[in-house]
Amino acid sequence: MAFLRNAWYCAGWTDELSDKPIGRTFLGEPVVMYRKEDGAAVAIGGRCPHRFAPLAMGKVKDGCIECPYHGLRFDQTGACSHNPHGDGAIPKAARVPAYPMVERYDVLWIWMGESSLANPDAIPDVHEIASQDGWRVIRGHLPVRAHYELITDNLMDLSHVPYLHPFLTGSGPLPPDFQEIRELKQDGNTVYSMHTNKNMPMSPLFQMLWNGEAPSVADMRAHMRWDAPSNLMLDVGMYPSNGPVSAGPSIPTAHLLTPETENSTHYFWAQARDTKRDSAELDAILKAGISDVFQNEDEKMIVACAELMGTNDLFSLKPVLLPGDGPAIRTRRVLSAMIDKEQAAGSVAA
Amino acid sequence: MAFLRNAWYCAGWTDELSDKPIGRTFLGEPVVMYRKEDGAAVAIGGRCPHRFAPLAMGKVKDGCIECPYHGLRFDQTGACSHNPHGDGAIPKAARVPAYPMVERYDVLWIWMGESSLANPDAIPDVHEIASQDGWRVIRGHLPVRAHYELITDNLMDLSHVPYLHPFLTGSGPLPPDFQEIRELKQDGNTVYSMHTNKNMPMSPLFQMLWNGEAPSVADMRAHMRWDAPSNLMLDVGMYPSNGPVSAGPSIPTAHLLTPETENSTHYFWAQARDTKRDSAELDAILKAGISDVFQNEDEKMIVACAELMGTNDLFSLKPVLLPGDGPAIRTRRVLSAMIDKEQAAGSVAA
Amino acid sequence: MAFLRNAWYCAGWTDELSDKPIGRTFLGEPVVMYRKEDGAAVAIGGRCPHRFAPLAMGKVKDGCIECPYHGLRFDQTGACSHNPHGDGAIPKAARVPAYPMVERYDVLWIWMGESSLANPDAIPDVHEIASQDGWRVIRGHLPVRAHYELITDNLMDLSHVPYLHPFLTGSGPLPPDFQEIRELKQDGNTVYSMHTNKNMPMSPLFQMLWNGEAPSVADMRAHMRWDAPSNLMLDVGMYPSNGPVSAGPSIPTAHLLTPETENSTHYFWAQARDTKRDSAELDAILKAGISDVFQNEDEKMIVACAELMGTNDLFSLKPVLLPGDGPAIRTRRVLSAMIDKEQAAGSVAA
Repeated sequence: MAFLRNAWYCAGWTDELSDKPIGRTFLGEPVVMYRKEDGAAVAIGGRCPHRFAPLAMGKVKDGCIECPYHGLRFDQTGACSHNPHGDGAIPKAARVPAYPMVERYDVLWIWMGESSLANPDAIPDVHEIASQDGWRVIRGHLPVRAHYELITDNLMDLSHVPYLHPFLTGSGPLPPDFQEIRELKQDGNTVYSMHTNKNMPMSPLFQMLWNGEAPSVADMRAHMRWDAPSNLMLDVGMYPSNGPVSAGPSIPTAHLLTPETENSTHYFWAQARDTKRDSAELDAILKAGISDVFQNEDEKMIVACAELMGTNDLFSLKPVLLPGDGPAIRTRRVLSAMIDKEQAAGSVAA
Repeated sequence: MAFLRNAWYCAGWTDELSDKPIGRTFLGEPVVMYRKEDGAAVAIGGRCPHRFAPLAMGKVKDGCIECPYHGLRFDQTGACSHNPHGDGAIPKAARVPAYPMVERYDVLWIWMGESSLANPDAIPDVHEIASQDGWRVIRGHLPVRAHYELITDNLMDLSHVPYLHPFLTGSGPLPPDFQEIRELKQDGNTVYSMHTNKNMPMSPLFQMLWNGEAPSVADMRAHMRWDAPSNLMLDVGMYPSNGPVSAGPSIPTAHLLTPETENSTHYFWAQARDTKRDSAELDAILKAGISDVFQNEDEKMIVACAELMGTNDLFSLKPVLLPGDGPAIRTRRVLSAMIDKEQAAGSVAA
Repeated sequence: MAFLRNAWYCAGWTDELSDKPIGRTFLGEPVVMYRKEDGAAVAIGGRCPHRFAPLAMGKVKDGCIECPYHGLRFDQTGACSHNPHGDGAIPKAARVPAYPMVERYDVLWIWMGESSLANPDAIPDVHEIASQDGWRVIRGHLPVRAHYELITDNLMDLSHVPYLHPFLTGSGPLPPDFQEIRELKQDGNTVYSMHTNKNMPMSPLFQMLWNGEAPSVADMRAHMRWDAPSNLMLDVGMYPSNGPVSAGPSIPTAHLLTPETENSTHYFWAQARDTKRDSAELDAILKAGISDVFQNEDEKMIVACAELMGTNDLFSLKPVLLPGDGPAIRTRRVLSAMIDKEQAAGSVAA
């Protein structure tokens, strides 16, 4: 299936970028990224048009990237700016694609489609994970050997949590007044999967985050917002039953999925918290916890499903759908329509 | 090439099965197997019809298997018996295949075809490897990265033994009255490859098994019986020249081959012996010996041949056939005819 | 793309060959090579026509190779010379291809095409790397996971050296009278890429090889000769500026590329030197240096390019060509014409 090309994808974190080039593949295309001396972030095609060497193995010189094989240099527009051989003439065809890149919310946003359509206003709002007063943010990047929509499916249907992640919900009997509220909302091309659990036993995770003594029963919200093609923002926290949300810890978490290929995905995550912000120990525990839970539970499961599916075309397998699939299926339909529209417009090279 | 589906295959050993589910792939299909509280052996499709998670990663609850991803449960008929979400309604399509399973001779026999045709009377007779008085049995399970018929070929033509396994036959000069008798027999769809060596030097293996002092020269029988599609039973032993078979050790050995995929096979083996039955040391030596010989000699060779063949269609390569190939070629023709007949009958989904 | 079959390829070094068979794949065909008791080098097809076992896993007996699986023997003509089974009759079809093999310059040369066309006079002259008085020779064999023409490209355009191998050229400013001379020559089907650098800073490599104190600036020649399909001989040395070539060290180096498959190559190299010939320490340094430089710099780059190309058809990717590509492109055109001609003649089985 085609990718949505006219869209902003997370290419990494702003603090990763320096004059050491980074090579990553997005939507099946090799990209090299670096920061110029003036601080500007650059993203251009990662394959030299001469002998197809990976530019990411080269060096940044004078704001350009030098091919590691024969020394051609390319600037931030993708044009060849220097040929060290012979009379130094620059062949007309010597250029690589240039990709618009914007830094916002500590995220490197890349546009893999038609440059003239790249509007920064379309960058999804994930301000919660930007460095800011009153919040502590941790970040990570995990490779996943599966199609990105399978990860979206996982995130849009949190009914998997008690089965896959018992640590996150706790176990033991539910109070008699326990109540689950699930809501699917759509606003334009944005889809929400809203979970609220009322009178739920305190989870070990939120117990750890709570300032002072945590109640044994509390309310929990987990509101996931999806923006096409695959940027998800989870507003999650626990708070005293029926009390104000601000009376308990919040840990808004961004899940930014960028397809690497048809069968692999860059999973960028960032989590902010408003309690115990100065604890480096807690940073380490949470960071390891998120990585471990994702890799040992979610990714292991997603990859196992992908193998048993044997195709990325979910609907061709006629899945049995449950109520909890509503939000994920909605994102698939919205995205599919957007891709169809983009393909029909023909403005984007396959 | 299609598999024979209406047939009994070895799925494992009866003592492997408990309430911990086992996931194995047979004939390209994922299967999950477990034992219910009442002791019944269950084998059903291993892929959840909801999100295609591997049920073998789940837990057995109330005689059903619970999907590890979102908690649907399936009973021994393959029907979904529990949906923990929403109003708990069970979608009609929520079911997986159920495979007839019979326990006999300490073997778990599975039927991968049309259930109504599964007749336990058709289970091949391998009573020699069942636990019983007067015999000691050891068992194993080895994965082989090759098509199952290449292993059948190997077993039906024991003329490879002196080349591939000098330890089993011994080396050194043959007595002048040494004599080889080879016979191919067919009885319905059962094929026999009968080897008798008269006045053969005592092999190191049988020397080890002999009660008391072994003669330096003896007779040896190695009678292989093949039942379609790939269950082989070897009646093998040495005995004093022209003496009664019972005067020397017998080690009947079952070789039960179950296709995992087109290019990989489960090799289940079991060996009984009627001498030195109480020696745990001998158990260990024989078990290691069979595994080592098979993996380092047979499997290594079979996989190397498979790589050089580059196809599972042996006849397309126009092999040069020798007299010793008779039995193996006979099994290929019998099996091929059975598969053609089954396919023509159309009673089995591909 | 087809291989050139009527050509001499390097199959290894003469001192590798003994009565222990060596199995290698050339042009996609398995070959087994061994030395008979009379010293003759034999190369025949490596796949037994019976059950397709790798003959290289067998033993040499009576000048023939014995199949490790069932004991058929094949002689140096590829004919089956012994069948140990049944009445010993040898099936007519029991034969493997025989490949002409010639030992010259300490190289095993193999002919993968029509035997009657195998003329030893066509073996490329690499006498510089044969053992001889006044020279010390070191040799190696490296596997490369890339199409052989990508390695030819690398060797025919040494303008990559300052970028990929700074150690070989040295770094630092060039003298004002530094001068580069590049010349492309063709003589029949032989192509030359001639590099001369005048007044170049002494390279660390030649400093190490120099007898006595090396000048800080000297001339360097690097004359590469290519013979189809992929045998390259580099005449390389440094010498006092405008002085005689013989006044400085020479290290003629053969690069003999033999396709293993479409995507992998045997890279055989040999380097002679006329200075410090008795230094085993220098042997070790140079041998490790060549292996390290090739594997960590050239091969790493070539494989990375091959991955980004995604095809062996360079021209289909419309590469941007630079002046330095002239010699490599010339070799590609010469080879392509030779292959077309050979295919059209139809004298060679695909």
